[in-house]
Amino acid sequence: MSQKVVLAFSGGLDTSFCVKYLSEDRGMEVHSVLVDTGGFSDDELKAIEDRAYSLGVKSHATIAKTDDYYQQCLKYLVFGNVLKNNTYPLCVSAERIFQALAAAEYARKIGANAIAHGSTGAGNDQVRFDMAFRIIIPEAEIITPIRDLRLSREAEIEYLKGKGVDQEWHKAAYSINKGLWGTSVGGKETLTSDQFLPESAWPTQVTKTEPETITLTFEQGELKGLNDESFNNPVDAIRKLTEIAGPFGVGRDIHVGDTIIGIKGRVGFEAPAPLVILKAHHTLEKHVLTKWQLYWKEQMANWYGTMLHEGQFIDPVMRNIETFLTDTQTHVSGKVHVLLAPYRFQVLGIESPYDLMSSAFGSYGEMNNAWTGDDVRGFSKVMSNQVMIYEKIAEHNR
Amino acid sequence: MSQKVVLAFSGGLDTSFCVKYLSEDRGMEVHSVLVDTGGFSDDELKAIEDRAYSLGVKSHATIAKTDDYYQQCLKYLVFGNVLKNNTYPLCVSAERIFQALAAAEYARKIGANAIAHGSTGAGNDQVRFDMAFRIIIPEAEIITPIRDLRLSREAEIEYLKGKGVDQEWHKAAYSINKGLWGTSVGGKETLTSDQFLPESAWPTQVTKTEPETITLTFEQGELKGLNDESFNNPVDAIRKLTEIAGPFGVGRDIHVGDTIIGIKGRVGFEAPAPLVILKAHHTLEKHVLTKWQLYWKEQMANWYGTMLHEGQFIDPVMRNIETFLTDTQTHVSGKVHVLLAPYRFQVLGIESPYDLMSSAFGSYGEMNNAWTGDDVRGFSKVMSNQVMIYEKIAEHNR
Amino acid sequence: MSQKVVLAFSGGLDTSFCVKYLSEDRGMEVHSVLVDTGGFSDDELKAIEDRAYSLGVKSHATIAKTDDYYQQCLKYLVFGNVLKNNTYPLCVSAERIFQALAAAEYARKIGANAIAHGSTGAGNDQVRFDMAFRIIIPEAEIITPIRDLRLSREAEIEYLKGKGVDQEWHKAAYSINKGLWGTSVGGKETLTSDQFLPESAWPTQVTKTEPETITLTFEQGELKGLNDESFNNPVDAIRKLTEIAGPFGVGRDIHVGDTIIGIKGRVGFEAPAPLVILKAHHTLEKHVLTKWQLYWKEQMANWYGTMLHEGQFIDPVMRNIETFLTDTQTHVSGKVHVLLAPYRFQVLGIESPYDLMSSAFGSYGEMNNAWTGDDVRGFSKVMSNQVMIYEKIAEHNR
Amino acid sequence: MSQKVVLAFSGGLDTSFCVKYLSEDRGMEVHSVLVDTGGFSDDELKAIEDRAYSLGVKSHATIAKTDDYYQQCLKYLVFGNVLKNNTYPLCVSAERIFQALAAAEYARKIGANAIAHGSTGAGNDQVRFDMAFRIIIPEAEIITPIRDLRLSREAEIEYLKGKGVDQEWHKAAYSINKGLWGTSVGGKETLTSDQFLPESAWPTQVTKTEPETITLTFEQGELKGLNDESFNNPVDAIRKLTEIAGPFGVGRDIHVGDTIIGIKGRVGFEAPAPLVILKAHHTLEKHVLTKWQLYWKEQMANWYGTMLHEGQFIDPVMRNIETFLTDTQTHVSGKVHVLLAPYRFQVLGIESPYDLMSSAFGSYGEMNNAWTGDDVRGFSKVMSNQVMIYEKIAEHNR
Repeated sequence: MSQKVVLAFSGGLDTSFCVKYLSEDRGMEVHSVLVDTGGFSDDELKAIEDRAYSLGVKSHATIAKTDDYYQQCLKYLVFGNVLKNNTYPLCVSAERIFQALAAAEYARKIGANAIAHGSTGAGNDQVRFDMAFRIIIPEAEIITPIRDLRLSREAEIEYLKGKGVDQEWHKAAYSINKGLWGTSVGGKETLTSDQFLPESAWPTQVTKTEPETITLTFEQGELKGLNDESFNNPVDAIRKLTEIAGPFGVGRDIHVGDTIIGIKGRVGFEAPAPLVILKAHHTLEKHVLTKWQLYWKEQMANWYGTMLHEGQFIDPVMRNIETFLTDTQTHVSGKVHVLLAPYRFQVLGIESPYDLMSSAFGSYGEMNNAWTGDDVRGFSKVMSNQVMIYEKIAEHNR
Repeated sequence: MSQKVVLAFSGGLDTSFCVKYLSEDRGMEVHSVLVDTGGFSDDELKAIEDRAYSLGVKSHATIAKTDDYYQQCLKYLVFGNVLKNNTYPLCVSAERIFQALAAAEYARKIGANAIAHGSTGAGNDQVRFDMAFRIIIPEAEIITPIRDLRLSREAEIEYLKGKGVDQEWHKAAYSINKGLWGTSVGGKETLTSDQFLPESAWPTQVTKTEPETITLTFEQGELKGLNDESFNNPVDAIRKLTEIAGPFGVGRDIHVGDTIIGIKGRVGFEAPAPLVILKAHHTLEKHVLTKWQLYWKEQMANWYGTMLHEGQFIDPVMRNIETFLTDTQTHVSGKVHVLLAPYRFQVLGIESPYDLMSSAFGSYGEMNNAWTGDDVRGFSKVMSNQVMIYEKIAEHNR
Repeated sequence: MSQKVVLAFSGGLDTSFCVKYLSEDRGMEVHSVLVDTGGFSDDELKAIEDRAYSLGVKSHATIAKTDDYYQQCLKYLVFGNVLKNNTYPLCVSAERIFQALAAAEYARKIGANAIAHGSTGAGNDQVRFDMAFRIIIPEAEIITPIRDLRLSREAEIEYLKGKGVDQEWHKAAYSINKGLWGTSVGGKETLTSDQFLPESAWPTQVTKTEPETITLTFEQGELKGLNDESFNNPVDAIRKLTEIAGPFGVGRDIHVGDTIIGIKGRVGFEAPAPLVILKAHHTLEKHVLTKWQLYWKEQMANWYGTMLHEGQFIDPVMRNIETFLTDTQTHVSGKVHVLLAPYRFQVLGIESPYDLMSSAFGSYGEMNNAWTGDDVRGFSKVMSNQVMIYEKIAEHNR
Repeated sequence: MSQKVVLAFSGGLDTSFCVKYLSEDRGMEVHSVLVDTGGFSDDELKAIEDRAYSLGVKSHATIAKTDDYYQQCLKYLVFGNVLKNNTYPLCVSAERIFQALAAAEYARKIGANAIAHGSTGAGNDQVRFDMAFRIIIPEAEIITPIRDLRLSREAEIEYLKGKGVDQEWHKAAYSINKGLWGTSVGGKETLTSDQFLPESAWPTQVTKTEPETITLTFEQGELKGLNDESFNNPVDAIRKLTEIAGPFGVGRDIHVGDTIIGIKGRVGFEAPAPLVILKAHHTLEKHVLTKWQLYWKEQMANWYGTMLHEGQFIDPVMRNIETFLTDTQTHVSGKVHVLLAPYRFQVLGIESPYDLMSSAFGSYGEMNNAWTGDDVRGFSKVMSNQVMIYEKIAEHNR
């Protein structure tokens, strides 16, 4: 009986190679799957499906996971204001893990005894796929032809040509990965430490030049409105904000960080909606949460981002952190005004019924009736006690 | 015998009132002191001294503390990439504490039995002064006329007029506090939650329009060069960078955060040099430090910033954290290229002999000879063990 | 109209003084309240009520809060294995805050315009009362006669005698505070740094000499069984365990720590049930939770304990942490075997359907089929990458 | 030319097998090395050396590392009060890493091109060896015969018999690993979750029955005295304390925790000196350090312990943490009194010139002249501000 393998398929050279290699060289029954987390148009999905069948898969499935992706992951990145290394919204990291999980669950569902991905041995994605596969469907063999065979691009093309797949494999100057939460951009500059990406490398070119003020409306931490428009589904609000903010070229940067396998890597990204949302959300939180809520949210969210990045999304501590983050959002409702301008944006201010800066209780810089000078004097005195004693004793022992 | 009081004196209305009140109403011998942490010109210092004597102080001292301020405080804010709430370089916080400490030490030196500050009861500064005074010179009485008497501005002017001090007390639309590490700006907008400061409120107007690329050179974490110029003293480099970057209007924002006394407050600031330095330094660190060095630096530095902000600078844990931060900087040397443009800047890339992204050891996105696909497969497998077991057991118990 | 004051009343000298002082000297209508969190017998409650009326209160209320105390506080101390400074189960801290909150809510309910406590100015309790009162019923005046008048014990007795209250005020050698979660013991030794409490000072004397093995059953983190007995209400299980373990003298120690007001303090305690429960619960968790669940639970719970101790129980971050802790307990079910012996106990082992040490998935110290030597080799290699590169670069730059 | 391999040699069955296998089957030049971290007597060291030569090594080296082990590792475990999972002093973990590092450095020194260890594929040690070898001498091949060949004990004995090594290989009921910082004990009970080790399994039997009070003297965090005896070298104090406390059976427990490879494991240990030292040191610290020093020490030390346990000792963050910990110890000097009794010990109290509980500055539970009731009232009021406002706003929005 031939082995039944599920292949995470993107339609590119590497996974096309995998279809042929698995079905013809290894004699397996290949079931390709594409998990859509919001980065594909309907036409693109159709084209990928056609490609899969033309290469000879037994079946191809497109799994629509955009809403789940938001509900089970992106939402928490917003609640946590997660920017890896203070910079990167984890666009690719989050997406890849979701795709890996969905592929693994699909493999379980159809009773596959093997599961394959087309990642190389050089990056983070291989580990994300490996771990999701192993945890969700541990009994399946994990097959990674590209990583194991270490073929050059040319060798893969040659191989496919030998199998009758003789098409143009376009090698773009920049490798682009587009998703709901941002688009990554890799190229010769990101392989160096000292060079920045040129203007032409960015998928979204700057076409707006006149500054524009927009208003984001959050309900319990979720983006539910833009200017006068309401959105039941924050996914739609994210898409709309991408449309509005993208042509300003905001949310571009290069992230440099630690890969899961220990080397340092750099990747460019443009993520206009995430960057604006996260900064706006965070500003709103600074007005409505207590000092220690802000402090612990930051600790937990930071860690959440790192574990997500490193493919450890399935660890139950991640569910516990999500529960915590959700619980902090009950008051995170209100409007945030943001100025968009070419290459930059600025949070202007917020309005919220939960604003702790409410002037009803005294304002910073203005004297207040809720306490007297004597109260603060007493506060300062008591707050000084320990270090005052410490210093006296230190001096005494000198 | 009359009481000898040291007064932290700025030459403004509040502290001018204090001189008269302390000397004439309370019959004390007033010794005014101004601690210079880099925010005053020589002319300004002279004018303040003259004002003090004209008001009738017994003595006035100007204490030059700029280098100490950098060496004992700002340096660590750079090592720690400290931005309070991811936004604010703590310009006023750090400065005020340094001034309070120096004033308290001066009071000890000259044998004062009282020490006074002119802060109101509404903000952070009163606590910073109170705590520094209490800890450094606990035996001295702390006198705070402005906080205790709660006089209006008009009443203070009237009082001084009655004492023969009949001058124009200019009330600016925006209260400005200028220092080496940035300038704070408060005004009617910062008393609201929803309004941003107008262009005209910023002390440094935007006069440069052409983007400019600059290079910062760090040696063991300290800024020691700008473009082709070397600086023995990072204080000079900070001043120079302020000159270069300021006219671009970069490093402007509004910080919203928790005051020491528990209310929320907003303050505008322009801090071109700190923002550029911190982002550049952090980027360099991402290349030269290990993942866990970055993680723990962030934890410690975050805390350091909060305690500094809250006037707890003297706690010995702060010295321990400084020692830790210094110890992390041995490899933080290299060049950072930064693009300056109106209202924004962009770190372009870095060069460092300690760069862990060195291509000699394999690059992100390119296959490497230091490990094989099997090695990563093994890594992923072992990394999955615990959660794989957890999931199996969870499923078994469902 | 006379002022209506609620007084947190214990029946001791200080609060008896308060009744007379508030009603007769200050002419207030005194409503005394005792909040029962499990430390009183019915007879004691009755005696306190009688005392209150005999002193002349307008009304006295006994509020039964033991179950709430467990459900809203102690439960989380168990979930979090909270031992302040690795030693102290926070018996008094937790109880006092609960009493303060309930008293404040009672004052709101009956429309009091003042609220009083009898704490001195020397300890933690005053702050706990002050804060709970201020936050729950901010419009009420807070009256603290003992703290403000600073009367000696003798002066209080004299005052009461003058008011016709001529009874024996027994001054015990040790001040004892008994509650559901443990009993504190203060005396002349705890005022020193170097002396331990004598055997006779402990309220529960050691009367069991033969070691005894008991089994605790936890369901989702809560103690629901002891040996063969089941308990619907963990409060009953705690009482029963106190009965069993107390006569062994286990759970005794002296806690030394930071008071809220900055000085160091020492307090003895005997808390047999809490110590056994916490250690047993923690051991069970080590078997059923993942590494990172254990790590983050410890961080959060530690903080929770500190804020509880310092009277900051009402901060909303505490609710967020409770939600987090609860979410971690879904698998914390099973049995824990414990040996009790005079002055000590030893957790012997656990049984749980969620035990991740299940031999079905390989045992520590025995080779396993789930991975090969090559897998671990690969794991170690990848885990070494970053530091290996770091060391090479460091060496190169030497 | 034959390959030159360094073998970490213990004289047991596994590493004896390795000598024969490497030299005869693989034709390598075997240089055995034993790193002494304090667990061996001179006689034992001599016997191991003889064994090595009798098996046919080219050379054998005994590297004395006990003092380095203390200075570079154990010292920091004391400074940090490190007990993994609040239980385990990391006796084996620390020792193994030190042995691995020393073996790797030795291999570098003698120019070996391969390096071998005899660990199985089931535990932590293999990873510790692998990582130290890879980082210190990355160019050497790492050979792990026991892990790779997966031979049974019987097969190894048979193999050796075939090579003429026909000796009695005693299989003890309990596997014991003795070191300066404690002795681990593994046996059939530790492979279960529910059983405790029997009395007979403990290497040091309980022979003292009369309680005994001892005094430990610390100087800047290091143990420098026991009762009236001073020690220049804390290693000697540790040995002496082991002699005194061991026969009481104190410091025994079973640690259950996460192995580096993701499974849970249990191991018994007896570590009388470490447990007494850590608890005594920690108690002293509670008296002399500030609240935030204690807090951050715990965070850092916890992490330090985990990374040490997991073989990540060489990461530079570990040096940074050591620097931090050392910096916190300047005031950690004084005497600690401890009661030793069968199976338990109790810290009785401390004396230190740096004691912050010094009665000169007011005592817990006694009113103090350094602040008034009004001061604390003001303190409580200001401390309540944020949550008071939060609650008002929450109520307003209900």
